[in-house]
Amino acid sequence: MSNANSLDVLIQALRRLPGVGVKSASRMAFHLLQHDRAGAQALAQALQVAADSVRHCQRCHTFTQADICGTCLDPQRDASKLCVVETPADQSAVERTGAYRGLYFVLMGKLSPLDGIGPKEIGLRGLFERASDGLVQEVILATNFTAEGEATAHVISEGLKTRGLRLTRLARGVPVGSELEYVDLGTIAHALVDRR
Amino acid sequence: MSNANSLDVLIQALRRLPGVGVKSASRMAFHLLQHDRAGAQALAQALQVAADSVRHCQRCHTFTQADICGTCLDPQRDASKLCVVETPADQSAVERTGAYRGLYFVLMGKLSPLDGIGPKEIGLRGLFERASDGLVQEVILATNFTAEGEATAHVISEGLKTRGLRLTRLARGVPVGSELEYVDLGTIAHALVDRR
Repeated sequence: MSNANSLDVLIQALRRLPGVGVKSASRMAFHLLQHDRAGAQALAQALQVAADSVRHCQRCHTFTQADICGTCLDPQRDASKLCVVETPADQSAVERTGAYRGLYFVLMGKLSPLDGIGPKEIGLRGLFERASDGLVQEVILATNFTAEGEATAHVISEGLKTRGLRLTRLARGVPVGSELEYVDLGTIAHALVDRR
Repeated sequence: MSNANSLDVLIQALRRLPGVGVKSASRMAFHLLQHDRAGAQALAQALQVAADSVRHCQRCHTFTQADICGTCLDPQRDASKLCVVETPADQSAVERTGAYRGLYFVLMGKLSPLDGIGPKEIGLRGLFERASDGLVQEVILATNFTAEGEATAHVISEGLKTRGLRLTRLARGVPVGSELEYVDLGTIAHALVDRR
């Protein structure tokens, strides 16, 4: 059936988005075509522009349209601190706290040998060079507290420990606003050990 | 910050998709830019083509690229039966059963006065004309079994009842494969009344 051919192509293309199955994709396609054609056009344009123009900052590897991102170029930032995060989303989470004024290194992933993601894929050599620029004094490991994030932090700390840098890890503990009763035991154990 | 500007535009555009918040949109943008630029290009293209070429079948209102869709043009289909559904997704659900060989009328929505969707917005006049072509003998109301779907079916049956057509509604009953213990009481009551 030639009927609705470009609709099927659209549904297949939407399924390439993470977390979108065939039902969500159909719902999205229906919504865009029936209620928001301007949204469809805007999304098409934004995808095209981003796919053409977004690349990686040469210093911190985050997404940027320039050679070096605005954060790395900002003279107000403390060049002695380097915060290592997995993704630009993690970077912006740290940034939104307003509690950090140093620089970043964005791994754009995490070590995951089963998925074929090793030290090379997340650019650890680039990180080691970046951390050895003579200005960086402290590397803050802010990878996620998942198995892969912990393994990534471990490998980075092994690679950097002979370079005379201060290596720190985000504190583990009880989340703000939570009740002890509902916090998992591993977290409480860490919060006890790291009490202050 | 000019940093990642087209990335922000992309995230905003992705948020126009139904059911996508800022976190999902960030995750989608990251995935496409980091792991699947070809997917981003394919999606941009599919959106553009669909937004430019997909329109409504003049007979049944479903999405199509032609004046009249393939289903309406198919001489094998039984023109004496007209199945009224809310969306193309509902149409394809009925179609996948293989149990129906008649034609369709797709409302492209449902009556929802609070959202400003009245009989005109879902093209009820077009349906009444379509059902009066002299060939249609039975109109099968296959709107959803929600409050709005039921109201829509009611309004359609009121509008068609003087035209000498057979009006039927999809059977309500116990879903195939389900255990009575877990079926809601309204459904069991309907299944008892409509027992055969």
